[in-house]
Amino acid sequence: MQDRHYILRDVHIIHINGAIKRDHYVEVKEGKIKTIGKMPVPKEKCHLPVISGDNNWLTAGMYNTHAHTPMTLLRGVADDVPLQVWLEKEIWPREALLDKEAVMTGTSLALAEMIRSGTVAFLDMYHLHMDKVFETTLESGIKAVLSRGMIAFGTEEEQEAKRKEAVRFANEWNEYGAGRMKGMLFPHAPYTCPPSFLEKVVEEAAIHELKVGIHVAETEKECQDHLKKYHKRPITHLAELGFLERDAILTHVVHVGEEEWPLLASSSVTVSHNPMSNLKLGSGIAPVTKMKREGIDVTFGTDSTASNNNLDMFEEMRIACLLQKGVFQQPEAIEAKEVFQMATINGAKALGFGDDGLIQEGAPADFILIDKKAFHLQPEQNIFSHLVYSASGHDVTDVFVDGVCLMRKRELQTLDEEKIYYEANRSFKQLEEKKQRGVQR
Amino acid sequence: MQDRHYILRDVHIIHINGAIKRDHYVEVKEGKIKTIGKMPVPKEKCHLPVISGDNNWLTAGMYNTHAHTPMTLLRGVADDVPLQVWLEKEIWPREALLDKEAVMTGTSLALAEMIRSGTVAFLDMYHLHMDKVFETTLESGIKAVLSRGMIAFGTEEEQEAKRKEAVRFANEWNEYGAGRMKGMLFPHAPYTCPPSFLEKVVEEAAIHELKVGIHVAETEKECQDHLKKYHKRPITHLAELGFLERDAILTHVVHVGEEEWPLLASSSVTVSHNPMSNLKLGSGIAPVTKMKREGIDVTFGTDSTASNNNLDMFEEMRIACLLQKGVFQQPEAIEAKEVFQMATINGAKALGFGDDGLIQEGAPADFILIDKKAFHLQPEQNIFSHLVYSASGHDVTDVFVDGVCLMRKRELQTLDEEKIYYEANRSFKQLEEKKQRGVQR
Repeated sequence: MQDRHYILRDVHIIHINGAIKRDHYVEVKEGKIKTIGKMPVPKEKCHLPVISGDNNWLTAGMYNTHAHTPMTLLRGVADDVPLQVWLEKEIWPREALLDKEAVMTGTSLALAEMIRSGTVAFLDMYHLHMDKVFETTLESGIKAVLSRGMIAFGTEEEQEAKRKEAVRFANEWNEYGAGRMKGMLFPHAPYTCPPSFLEKVVEEAAIHELKVGIHVAETEKECQDHLKKYHKRPITHLAELGFLERDAILTHVVHVGEEEWPLLASSSVTVSHNPMSNLKLGSGIAPVTKMKREGIDVTFGTDSTASNNNLDMFEEMRIACLLQKGVFQQPEAIEAKEVFQMATINGAKALGFGDDGLIQEGAPADFILIDKKAFHLQPEQNIFSHLVYSASGHDVTDVFVDGVCLMRKRELQTLDEEKIYYEANRSFKQLEEKKQRGVQR
Repeated sequence: MQDRHYILRDVHIIHINGAIKRDHYVEVKEGKIKTIGKMPVPKEKCHLPVISGDNNWLTAGMYNTHAHTPMTLLRGVADDVPLQVWLEKEIWPREALLDKEAVMTGTSLALAEMIRSGTVAFLDMYHLHMDKVFETTLESGIKAVLSRGMIAFGTEEEQEAKRKEAVRFANEWNEYGAGRMKGMLFPHAPYTCPPSFLEKVVEEAAIHELKVGIHVAETEKECQDHLKKYHKRPITHLAELGFLERDAILTHVVHVGEEEWPLLASSSVTVSHNPMSNLKLGSGIAPVTKMKREGIDVTFGTDSTASNNNLDMFEEMRIACLLQKGVFQQPEAIEAKEVFQMATINGAKALGFGDDGLIQEGAPADFILIDKKAFHLQPEQNIFSHLVYSASGHDVTDVFVDGVCLMRKRELQTLDEEKIYYEANRSFKQLEEKKQRGVQR
């Protein structure tokens, strides 16, 4: 359904504030929600094309604030090993072999998986063939904030070249696709980018009005190493470098020093909490309950499928919520509705898609339909509880972004499912053969 | 497919020991696996009825070692509150209103959800209308170990009556349905059953050769209260009462005293680890890595959907595994294959279904098919990784128990989907109306 003006009828709208509108229709015009009304559709609108919502739930889509989509090709190559072994023996040698085609294939596989599981927008940070990642993403119809990631080892010249390329990429694609695509700057981490480099990134971000993001405080070891090297913890260091003043998206933030809380609370940063990746890599559990108490915006990210191993944001929501209750032995630590808001409107805001997820007149027509009849969502009541504690991405039947239907009755509308399945497996096989032959890019 | 003798063709068999047999067929006769062979099906077997496995993965089904299925009707009635509020204000008042019909409806809903998500056998402990739970379960074709749960407050006579009823129930139904159904004895917990009662349960179990199970060491508070009352921790107490000598299934076991490890390790108990319920109720995280090291058999249970909130065993596997890595900051703490074994063969053994899950000639024809083409299971490789870290119950397409097909291409074969959906919602609505009117059973 690519019509610019149509009616989606027979839906129960679940607003993220808790309001439920039963038996409604949504009129979509030019990518926005024009009106919302109680069924039946009024006579004067009956000439419009109509899609049936099959009495399913209509709610905000998921906003994944941290991904490395091309790495989806590496799902399952290595698990259950320490981080350094994982990186040095399994991930980096394969990444060194990823050509353009492999990067596009991995991205397509990720896009298919994200749309199928109800994600309407995501943030991506990667360093290989990012223009191809951009093109592939643009075609899918999803919203995205992309960055050419920067690891700033090497000489001054090499660092400068990387920064320039990242700025070029972000500027070239920022606000493309009528604002559906954005560019941003994403230096990898305080331990892979020297302070002088990060300061320059902050300057560039200010000049070009770009968002910034970084991985930080992922492991206790990172924090201890930083303390040794710079005599301060990494978040403190970022604050000194001006990084926190740029509405930064800080990814992970698992290990926060007591003295760092006021720095986070007094800034406008957003945390991208990646609970499954943090668990799988043995990094620990981010203090989300405390972040909430301190008024720090929390959102969720999947991280790459090499450390997750899927892109289902419903799982991140569920795990994030359960972890805070279980680890701190406080069942009341966090509520289903709050967690749903983190995954939806908080994510939209962090990614710069302001009104997204609000399902109100004038807002972008970004939403998903959820199979109301799934057994694990019965009896029908307390819908936020079902969405957070029982639903999964598999329950999503339809996905709309800027009014364009990306999935209809569980079939992708903008991507070729058979092709993606075939190419992902072919590409992976080629990669493993190259690795065994010891071929370098 | 209720034929007693047939061929399931075109499957890739994933053995729990890691062996993969590509392009095979399975010949099923009278509930057992008669032969396994490489495709094509030999000429002399071509007269047999044939089912296509669609080139999907065939592997062991899930064994859920802890559930309270009738409570499935209470999914989502209350979350995010402390345990006592949850029990006293939300769960118990509703349970007091559950009539026969509601119990059967809740059980049917659970059965539908379990079969859909690949569970082939489960243990259930509940206290209301258990004969109806039995009948409903028997009809579904799933395997089950059922118990009339015992909370032994009240006078000696009341306790005796409860014990007698539990023994009657277990004996009446044990080994019913050609051994597909079993009875067992399940006193609720050391804090709800006095020591003298537990001793008598152990005696009865010995006389009638019945399995025993109990909830124990779920919360730190339970352990501290037990220490105060009896000057010993609850697992120690169970050991003294002879409970651990009965191949007991101990549910939860979150808080183990240092001195209790040898008691567990030297006995033949199995732990039913319920990670999501333990998180959600704020109970803590069971020391599964240590249990593994001590040689204690671990299996997984979902607990009831009132504290989970679904019955998808794939999620329990994933969370169990990730928690051990994350909480103890050890990515190598536990491997995907081990976790898969816990959910399958360990569970089968604990429930008394010995050879189940082995997918070998002579073993019961209990297995599931998994959609090999799901995007989140690509690229195809390292299948245990995909099964544990990325798959979900939604990926299960077909379920076979004792050779009978309970789900075919995602449609339940022995249960009426529409009826269950309709009745679950009607029953719940009636329950809430009764509660509001203050009606007692």
